[in-house]
Amino acid sequence: MAAGAGELKLLGFWASPFMHRVQMAMHLKGMTGYEYVEEDLMNKSELLLSSNPAHKKVPVLLHAGKPVCESMLIVQYLDEAFPAAGPAFLPADPHARALARFWASFVDTNFFGSWIKAIVATTDEERAAANGAAAAALETMEGAFEECSKGKAFFGGDGPGFVDLALGGFVAWIRAYQKVAGADCGLLVADRTPLLAAWADRFAALDAARAVVPDVGRLAEFASRDMLPLLHHLLGKAGK
Amino acid sequence: MAAGAGELKLLGFWASPFMHRVQMAMHLKGMTGYEYVEEDLMNKSELLLSSNPAHKKVPVLLHAGKPVCESMLIVQYLDEAFPAAGPAFLPADPHARALARFWASFVDTNFFGSWIKAIVATTDEERAAANGAAAAALETMEGAFEECSKGKAFFGGDGPGFVDLALGGFVAWIRAYQKVAGADCGLLVADRTPLLAAWADRFAALDAARAVVPDVGRLAEFASRDMLPLLHHLLGKAGK
Repeated sequence: MAAGAGELKLLGFWASPFMHRVQMAMHLKGMTGYEYVEEDLMNKSELLLSSNPAHKKVPVLLHAGKPVCESMLIVQYLDEAFPAAGPAFLPADPHARALARFWASFVDTNFFGSWIKAIVATTDEERAAANGAAAAALETMEGAFEECSKGKAFFGGDGPGFVDLALGGFVAWIRAYQKVAGADCGLLVADRTPLLAAWADRFAALDAARAVVPDVGRLAEFASRDMLPLLHHLLGKAGK
Repeated sequence: MAAGAGELKLLGFWASPFMHRVQMAMHLKGMTGYEYVEEDLMNKSELLLSSNPAHKKVPVLLHAGKPVCESMLIVQYLDEAFPAAGPAFLPADPHARALARFWASFVDTNFFGSWIKAIVATTDEERAAANGAAAAALETMEGAFEECSKGKAFFGGDGPGFVDLALGGFVAWIRAYQKVAGADCGLLVADRTPLLAAWADRFAALDAARAVVPDVGRLAEFASRDMLPLLHHLLGKAGK
């Protein structure tokens, strides 16, 4: 266990891909001794509401009682607050750091921002349009993979880095979605994004992913039954 | 002029609040010797399209030919690539850094994300709802100001920092909007957010803001005439 990890408490939800990013990051850094608190998102704890009053969302990392919110900001915080623990996820070079932050932000805005619209769509037309935008964002990420990885296995080089965690949090969820949607939605498939499809296999095979992320079948079961009521609850009440 | 600033080229648009963030940051760091290139957003240059192919947006900072995109990522880049130039915008403490990044992101997502909907709204009802959400986001920022400034003049303490630049980029634009909208839209006004209203006066009085940001009257004239066609052009064509 890394120094100071005993003062860490993570507020999460077992199926949250944003929480998985943080848990994978902590696993990769060897910070496995933290306290995990599962939140009931239908009835959030006082600790979650007071730790993240602006968004009221998981994940929240409490370090010696002080909250850090937003998954990729938590990942940066781990790099900066525990520099001696495991690999740094952001590279040392300023330009490479800016590039990694840019693509991680693109994953959230352009890929996830479109994909969530496909997930909650109420008409086939709306779903197809949103799904198409999500697939297009992954095609852009195919180029980003070439730019960042420079022929190595991960966006971060030989090992997973900042962009790997950003996109990697969605790998199992994308597979669960394909299972539930019943049709080929064209996300992370070899004929559209061959480099990313191979990357996704490598990412899912990492110890950190296998230790943290629920299996695709369990996510698919959740997606087909409990997810939509939960999403509508969270979106409809602005996450309260 | 700071070391290396001669290799810097900034692609911008005179009225862009995102570009103003970067120009103010460079002014505060004493990096005034860069080359500025004004973009025609109705007919973007090949250099802009090839420097930011994913979003095709200004500002882009080219440093020795390598592009850095997204205003707040450029500000972080300036801190990291030119550590000897002027004040650092992000604090040194990891938790304070995470907090500054969190609130800067909140400004973009919750304040600007709502406000732009008010600006392009086509019905009064839609405009009032979006404007209300923007005002609510500023009320949340009022609390953030107390949390970050700890009684000092700026979010960043005695001098402007990361969150000051994020929100400060909008100060003149909010004032121009109030002028054009003709009604009190309740943004940055003393009876709703007294701390922020006083902060906005201090921010607008900074040399860096006065040197960079066009005056409110000129922005208001642009807003009442050329802005909406431009915004519809940019949003309708996904910024192409």
